[in-house]
Amino acid sequence: MKRNLKKITLREIDFAQWYTDIVLNADLIAYGPVKGTTIFKPYGYAIWENIQKILDAEFKKNGVKNVYFPLLISKTLFNKEKEHIEGFSPEIVTVTKVGNKVLDEELYIRPTSEVLFGTFFSKEIQGYHELPLLYNQWVNVLRWEKTTRPFLRTSEFLWQEGHTIHSSKQEAQQFTLKILDIYATFAEKTLLLPVIKGQKTEREKFAGAEETYTIESLMYDGQALQCGTSHYFGQNFSKAFDIKFSNQKNILEYAYSTSWGVSTRLIGGLIMTHSDDNGLVLPPQIAPIQIMILPINNDNDDQLFAVEQLQKKLHKYRCEIDQSDKGFGFRASNAEIKGIPLRIEIGSSDLVQQQVIIARRDTFEKITVSWTEIEKVVSDLLDQIATNLYQRALDNRHQRTKKIDNYSEYKKTLAKMNGLFLVPFCGRIECEDTIKAETQTTSRCIPFDVSTKKTTCFHCGQPATNLVYFARAY
Amino acid sequence: MKRNLKKITLREIDFAQWYTDIVLNADLIAYGPVKGTTIFKPYGYAIWENIQKILDAEFKKNGVKNVYFPLLISKTLFNKEKEHIEGFSPEIVTVTKVGNKVLDEELYIRPTSEVLFGTFFSKEIQGYHELPLLYNQWVNVLRWEKTTRPFLRTSEFLWQEGHTIHSSKQEAQQFTLKILDIYATFAEKTLLLPVIKGQKTEREKFAGAEETYTIESLMYDGQALQCGTSHYFGQNFSKAFDIKFSNQKNILEYAYSTSWGVSTRLIGGLIMTHSDDNGLVLPPQIAPIQIMILPINNDNDDQLFAVEQLQKKLHKYRCEIDQSDKGFGFRASNAEIKGIPLRIEIGSSDLVQQQVIIARRDTFEKITVSWTEIEKVVSDLLDQIATNLYQRALDNRHQRTKKIDNYSEYKKTLAKMNGLFLVPFCGRIECEDTIKAETQTTSRCIPFDVSTKKTTCFHCGQPATNLVYFARAY
Repeated sequence: MKRNLKKITLREIDFAQWYTDIVLNADLIAYGPVKGTTIFKPYGYAIWENIQKILDAEFKKNGVKNVYFPLLISKTLFNKEKEHIEGFSPEIVTVTKVGNKVLDEELYIRPTSEVLFGTFFSKEIQGYHELPLLYNQWVNVLRWEKTTRPFLRTSEFLWQEGHTIHSSKQEAQQFTLKILDIYATFAEKTLLLPVIKGQKTEREKFAGAEETYTIESLMYDGQALQCGTSHYFGQNFSKAFDIKFSNQKNILEYAYSTSWGVSTRLIGGLIMTHSDDNGLVLPPQIAPIQIMILPINNDNDDQLFAVEQLQKKLHKYRCEIDQSDKGFGFRASNAEIKGIPLRIEIGSSDLVQQQVIIARRDTFEKITVSWTEIEKVVSDLLDQIATNLYQRALDNRHQRTKKIDNYSEYKKTLAKMNGLFLVPFCGRIECEDTIKAETQTTSRCIPFDVSTKKTTCFHCGQPATNLVYFARAY
Repeated sequence: MKRNLKKITLREIDFAQWYTDIVLNADLIAYGPVKGTTIFKPYGYAIWENIQKILDAEFKKNGVKNVYFPLLISKTLFNKEKEHIEGFSPEIVTVTKVGNKVLDEELYIRPTSEVLFGTFFSKEIQGYHELPLLYNQWVNVLRWEKTTRPFLRTSEFLWQEGHTIHSSKQEAQQFTLKILDIYATFAEKTLLLPVIKGQKTEREKFAGAEETYTIESLMYDGQALQCGTSHYFGQNFSKAFDIKFSNQKNILEYAYSTSWGVSTRLIGGLIMTHSDDNGLVLPPQIAPIQIMILPINNDNDDQLFAVEQLQKKLHKYRCEIDQSDKGFGFRASNAEIKGIPLRIEIGSSDLVQQQVIIARRDTFEKITVSWTEIEKVVSDLLDQIATNLYQRALDNRHQRTKKIDNYSEYKKTLAKMNGLFLVPFCGRIECEDTIKAETQTTSRCIPFDVSTKKTTCFHCGQPATNLVYFARAY
């Protein structure tokens, strides 16, 4: 494979270039021939498959069923919910022809599928006893982007979009928050990304939603990443798409809907949180290869026999042997670049002493382990790596989180560092527009677990409604 | 849910209408708002998920890795392989705008992705030791259709497309056939569709391929369905896309490529082979629900307790309880319409006698089974159902297979029945064009296991090259 063999740019020197170097060196993607598109290579796609497998099982446990809705949406249909179309219009990829024939009506490639689900639900449901309907799909969506970055901002991306419909406001709101909890738990326990749960401000909420909830994570460089969102639509889409059901009193009522999604951006989040100057660092649960076994000398039969025995011993892990014809140093550094949590080395003297060397990817620590203790040590080390990666990210966030109550201090701090800034805020769109224009920061969320004191907006001085996190964001 | 409650049209009376009735009554799909698009509802999508799970594991066992390539292909790129673009041009869905901005170059929505993989491979490979690359993706593709039918012919469909590249002709050809074997085994053992393996004629082979191999199945009504294809491209795409590698002598050589796919058409094949006038009939391995347990009286606590115990006992199967508020008859017929292989009924007298009633979907046979023997009987019955469904389909094919050697007998037979007709054929495109125009039949495949005798073409009288199966086909 043509590998970008360029040395990885130091993370402290140029974070953006470091990111691109990691993505290419770890063999996650290639650039597609159309601007802004990327190809998920096997190693990159395997990460997404692991994300899918774990989340999909979690959704199903909560009664969600998978479906598949069409890629193309007619213009008329899309225009039914005005706020929604406005939110997407500049990014919408439009089909006008088939073969040489111009279509009677333009078709949009889905940037998201609320309107299709809305139309479907309006025909599907009759009575309250058929509700809720809890649907999800794993699909590609398109939103044209001027400047693109692998995983973080691409014209086409992969995601799951859940769409549910309920007979009561309370049930729909609870479900919106239940999904947020599933996302938060997945981010923290599996991806090892510390996240803050909260609600989006008026300016940042999803086009057409009544309430948008989010999990926000802070990257190594102090910029925030929105990792997943869950939207409560109230009856907005039901009214636009005429989704009615007969309630227990046999009266027709508009239904309540939600939608929620996470995307391949999560892979970008993983990289920007855990990786280092030596390459990718992957959380054990999500790593396509959890353990790479290296015979120091890859044409020594005794070593080859030993590594195969070891692979069998470790069969419950995703464990591979690198016995390619490259030198040991190259193979060891390849395992490092690819972020494989544990590397096990076996040389001739190890065979004599019935031991192996285990190297941790996160700390570079190497330990000698006797043959009989390998399984126990591997299990412990993988747990320790998970704990360490999460703690490291949490420490970084703590160091970069500041409580600020006036705009001049805010700007002064921003000039020195990126981070998460908790500020009293009025909640007005105009005020947030100005802040964004002046500082390139946006509100990330109104956190759930922070009590509001009566105070004034850090920017405009009007009464504050909430304490809100602001940050520069990807 | 709004269920199409219309009675199912009898299969012998109107096969096409029967098919549509089954698809809608079994709740597999809904029609999408854009012409020719369908929505996979949860029950329909779950069948596809089961197909994916089994085939994906099989591909991976054979070293294939999953990837994801972009949806959009530029016009220039697509036009690089002339025969390929001609094969698809009238069906290609074309993007010309983003928002209000007209694009500099038109983009095509993939009808298949050979050209993207070709471009990628040309940049990716250098030496022979990096080959083969064995890639696959599970994606949506679009081919615009004038007349559409759920699963069988839709403008958008889901499929997997494998793309591989090899350093020798022999290896590529062997891999093409290995995949054909995987498809054939999956069709026969899992979907219980008897298939004939063979090669496509010149007229029917894939646009741009040197050789196309296929598995062909015969539906209940005697029309054939192509269930999967595997293409050997030789160096055609390598020459069009400049895919070269340095061989063992360090000389640059064009690589050899293959592609192969199965799609959601397989679900149509399942329906048209196994289902009957009472609804869907599903093979046990692929059924989203393998066993439906019905308490005869759904508000009797003893029965409810018993069905829950039974579900626990049968935990290794996909087993559900229907305790909805509908009457027993409705629930039993619902399990039938949905093609659930086994239905287990428990009433009050069964509780007393420590027994259950088990009903087979395929034969409608009902047997009384004592509580202690349930697991053994369920396991045996599921095996028997599989054997029976396959045998039934095979019998139908045998009855509808005829060896014919002249065109007048061919037309006479076709006037009486649809079926699979083995004929001596010259292999010429013009000859096949005429046959198609006159009889609406096409060649399905040149079977592997039939020896060729020197004889003359059943249609034109020129020397025959092979014995070939012809049929009307979906």
